[in-house]
Amino acid sequence: MKRIGRGTVEFTAPPTVLGAGAVGGKKEGQGPLSAYFDQTFDDVSLGYTSWEKAEAQLQNEAVAVALDKAGCTADGVDMIFAGDLLNQCISSTFGLLEYEIPFLGQYGACSTMAQTLLMAAMAVDAGAAQRAVAVTSSHFCSAERQFRTPLEYGAQRTPTAQWTATAAGAVVLGTGGKIRVRRGLVGRIRELGIKDPSNMGAAMAPAAAQSILQFLEDTGSRPEDFDRIFTGDLGLVGTRLLYDLTEDNGVDLRPVHNDCGLMLYDREEQDVHAGGSGCGCSASVLCGHIFTQMEQKVLRNVLFCATGALMSTTSQQQGEPIPGICHVVQLTVE
Amino acid sequence: MKRIGRGTVEFTAPPTVLGAGAVGGKKEGQGPLSAYFDQTFDDVSLGYTSWEKAEAQLQNEAVAVALDKAGCTADGVDMIFAGDLLNQCISSTFGLLEYEIPFLGQYGACSTMAQTLLMAAMAVDAGAAQRAVAVTSSHFCSAERQFRTPLEYGAQRTPTAQWTATAAGAVVLGTGGKIRVRRGLVGRIRELGIKDPSNMGAAMAPAAAQSILQFLEDTGSRPEDFDRIFTGDLGLVGTRLLYDLTEDNGVDLRPVHNDCGLMLYDREEQDVHAGGSGCGCSASVLCGHIFTQMEQKVLRNVLFCATGALMSTTSQQQGEPIPGICHVVQLTVE
Repeated sequence: MKRIGRGTVEFTAPPTVLGAGAVGGKKEGQGPLSAYFDQTFDDVSLGYTSWEKAEAQLQNEAVAVALDKAGCTADGVDMIFAGDLLNQCISSTFGLLEYEIPFLGQYGACSTMAQTLLMAAMAVDAGAAQRAVAVTSSHFCSAERQFRTPLEYGAQRTPTAQWTATAAGAVVLGTGGKIRVRRGLVGRIRELGIKDPSNMGAAMAPAAAQSILQFLEDTGSRPEDFDRIFTGDLGLVGTRLLYDLTEDNGVDLRPVHNDCGLMLYDREEQDVHAGGSGCGCSASVLCGHIFTQMEQKVLRNVLFCATGALMSTTSQQQGEPIPGICHVVQLTVE
Repeated sequence: MKRIGRGTVEFTAPPTVLGAGAVGGKKEGQGPLSAYFDQTFDDVSLGYTSWEKAEAQLQNEAVAVALDKAGCTADGVDMIFAGDLLNQCISSTFGLLEYEIPFLGQYGACSTMAQTLLMAAMAVDAGAAQRAVAVTSSHFCSAERQFRTPLEYGAQRTPTAQWTATAAGAVVLGTGGKIRVRRGLVGRIRELGIKDPSNMGAAMAPAAAQSILQFLEDTGSRPEDFDRIFTGDLGLVGTRLLYDLTEDNGVDLRPVHNDCGLMLYDREEQDVHAGGSGCGCSASVLCGHIFTQMEQKVLRNVLFCATGALMSTTSQQQGEPIPGICHVVQLTVE
């Protein structure tokens, strides 16, 4: 591993994807990326008595699929990097308990898939782990009641609001796979005064712009060097702001950019307002759609830039703004 | 870095401590480790309007001290690994925002100091960061109202309950310091059916026993090879259980063991029942007492084994047990 900037690294023995799993709920299974999911559950309780247990099970299932595709068991994994949106990351704790893999809880809000992927890649590249797993999840129902209102309340959603994905994504990294983790950037917290919890896209866009511009600078790249630059879940509002913010710096992302929050659902048909969100959104798009397109060599060189809003209901109630973060991972296939 | 077991690593270019800071509240300043704190605040609001902002400021202060002792500014740090007990780790987000250091949120409950230290050491050893910071905090008042009851409620505490420390610890790792991070073990989640949230020691002891025994096995060591084995915050109940559990495996920790939860306060005088707890407990004992004793070469070879209880109020209300985790870090000085 080589430091090529402050928080920016190049993997010299690039860790590769040995297997990945994407699971989702009913709505995700009805969306445009339906075919890329390994499994979708029409009953989003997954047969459990609480939404939190259902979400934990999503992580469990995603890891099971990823291990299966990687052709290894949990015993063959040295470290698992996992996190989620629930208080104290209980989806990860309870969902992954049975695997008994050395566990490192991560918190990056909706940027967690990029963060866990980056940490797992560092562990494999450094030789600390032969195989490492990165996983995260979100669930519409557990997130709504924790962050906003119970479903039964029937709250109206604003046009800038995004829909928390019921989904999980997991990836097993090791040596010998086709898709390589080439470089990564650890984002900085960025806060420009956005206080509206129904407009996460606006809160996260400045961090996305900062991290992408920094990555391009540190690596001497231009947007057109990549087949695609995916942001995590900026949605419609955040994506427009990202274009404005990067354009101010003379960088036009439009020709190569897409946002996982705009890809997961059909905004016209599925009533998700500004798009999808939640850790499981970019995680399932990465572990389903993006990795599949890379295996098929439709995409050969991509940036995965998951974004997160680092707030809680307490910080919100205390009138604090919503800081954002964005971690960047470059993935290539020969 | 070399993998010497599943989740166990040996640092080959050992990262060293360049500076550390320990800050605490009034009660911590009145305890037996008082002299080892860099700063204690008699007004535990630190002048802020909420306990959460006060806790965020504790992290900020601890990092400021650590940077100062390391003789560098925030700009000279490539990555910061931080976490805390508050929902969505807001003490870390808001406390560290102004430093603008590439940020990786960690969640290991009260094991967070060992986890962040391990991650920072991996980043430095692997060459991903020239300098990396590890930091965590807890605050009695923010933890009580989030996990238990508001202070105004005046709840009775049971004899097995521990007192959440109002404290933070931060350490800058890099090359050229005296204290070395030599080896580390990433713990596995362990759950033996404990459901009493007023008995965290019992919930965490099985994880501590498992991680310490595994570390001894992976490194071919015995307890007497170390000047001291510190556990995070098992308190009185957890410590007794740890002795029982390790004794069952033919290992006697008593001659070299101490617990940060039993060290931070005077249990006879300070009404903390079974001892101290919270991320800030082991963090401030490490960054104050332990590092000072190592600099003075009173201690030359120690294990720091911070323990965490991976539960939330939601998992508790849903009748789930309390899983524990324990990460191990070996520190030496020549």
